[in-house]
Amino acid sequence: MNLADLSPAQLRQRIRQGAFAGPTAGLANGYAQANLLVVRRELAFDFLLFCQRNPKACPLLEVTDPGSFEPRRIAPGADIRHDLPKYRIYRHGVLEQEVADITPFWEDDMLAFLIGCSFSFEGALLANGIPVRHIEDGHNVPMYRSNLPCVAAGSLAGPMVVSMRPMPAALAIRATQLTSRFPAVHGAPVHIGDPRQIGIADLERPDFGDPAQLREGEVPVFWACGVTPQAVVMQAKPALAISHAPGHMFISDLRDEQLALI
Amino acid sequence: MNLADLSPAQLRQRIRQGAFAGPTAGLANGYAQANLLVVRRELAFDFLLFCQRNPKACPLLEVTDPGSFEPRRIAPGADIRHDLPKYRIYRHGVLEQEVADITPFWEDDMLAFLIGCSFSFEGALLANGIPVRHIEDGHNVPMYRSNLPCVAAGSLAGPMVVSMRPMPAALAIRATQLTSRFPAVHGAPVHIGDPRQIGIADLERPDFGDPAQLREGEVPVFWACGVTPQAVVMQAKPALAISHAPGHMFISDLRDEQLALI
Repeated sequence: MNLADLSPAQLRQRIRQGAFAGPTAGLANGYAQANLLVVRRELAFDFLLFCQRNPKACPLLEVTDPGSFEPRRIAPGADIRHDLPKYRIYRHGVLEQEVADITPFWEDDMLAFLIGCSFSFEGALLANGIPVRHIEDGHNVPMYRSNLPCVAAGSLAGPMVVSMRPMPAALAIRATQLTSRFPAVHGAPVHIGDPRQIGIADLERPDFGDPAQLREGEVPVFWACGVTPQAVVMQAKPALAISHAPGHMFISDLRDEQLALI
Repeated sequence: MNLADLSPAQLRQRIRQGAFAGPTAGLANGYAQANLLVVRRELAFDFLLFCQRNPKACPLLEVTDPGSFEPRRIAPGADIRHDLPKYRIYRHGVLEQEVADITPFWEDDMLAFLIGCSFSFEGALLANGIPVRHIEDGHNVPMYRSNLPCVAAGSLAGPMVVSMRPMPAALAIRATQLTSRFPAVHGAPVHIGDPRQIGIADLERPDFGDPAQLREGEVPVFWACGVTPQAVVMQAKPALAISHAPGHMFISDLRDEQLALI
């Protein structure tokens, strides 16, 4: 059976059983995937407030009740402790290890934040014939620390991390229209054009991911990136925090199109 | 000088000085007004989570830092303790009194939630030539407790309160398009047509506000209403909570059109 044909629930079951442990790009096409961040209750208010104040970088698909590992609105029956292929355990902001199951790390006052992922809007770009360079090249998307400030909340502060996709100006306009429909997955771009205007000195040296070639006549288009909340939380050095491993996302039951505002 | 010509900052100054104490409808036309709810820090996480889970009923324009009475993103320099014309003080969920200044009630761990108000989307309706019955009649909008459940958060739960505007079907379609642009002020309708389908037995007997006449050929159109969060919070009977008095809103520096998603 082809993995690409499995439903979100079937895929989560495979992952839970340890039968699939790879990156989730291309799986359950048309269904929204999510970034995961698990924190203790003591950090939850600040983080929820940070997300409210920075919706482009931190669009929340769901926040579980304190103590609950079931995202019952976007994937009833799922268990975020072992339904993702790979997790990262951070102690005091430092990556300690990667694991396939966070059950041993789960505490009764933890809760999960599930944050929209650009896979959803890239589907809309591809469906409109807009090529996505890093997908064509089989690379990770290039990401940069910009000088666009996030609005701070309590102990949480830092610059916005942005992802970049190069394209001709006409397609940048169309991409702006298309992604505006999807505020739950970062929405419209935050910048188009000269990277120095948002504090990026060299496009060829991304802070995360791989470079993407800017061809003659193309402009770089920048979107708020889901790495932002993770960077901001880790900078606050909580005693324990857990995230998905890059590219190893949570697969929800929501269709990408259900996230479209209009 | 005509009050209608004053800027939001000038109006807030007048209100702060006690020179204006009436309802704010029609003031600072084109600028967004907001519902206010002030709670202690102990209830803030549950309420913020409730808003995240029920964005149509509780669209947040701003949440202040704990202890802060300045909504610095939507109205820098404002002070929510005395920049609204009238407030309601609730003890254990019961209305105790109405006051013109909440400074004596403010506590160091309180914070303010400013929630989008339908005045903004009614401006868009009127600008499109869609008549708004309760404005024509000089009444308050009719509001009903529906059977549409809100998603609970901690101690906070309850049904969605909806507002109703009657109009011909063709205008209901246009109104759906127009209000979809404004998720920050309740967005698209939650129901069009038979009120019994959402648990409303008699349109002529609203739970809040005044009835609005349904004329031959008109359908009732229902939107999520900003009374919902207030009803839900008061039902949880917090020792102390403060809201604006109905119709006596906070006037922000945001233009209605800045709230439009696209």
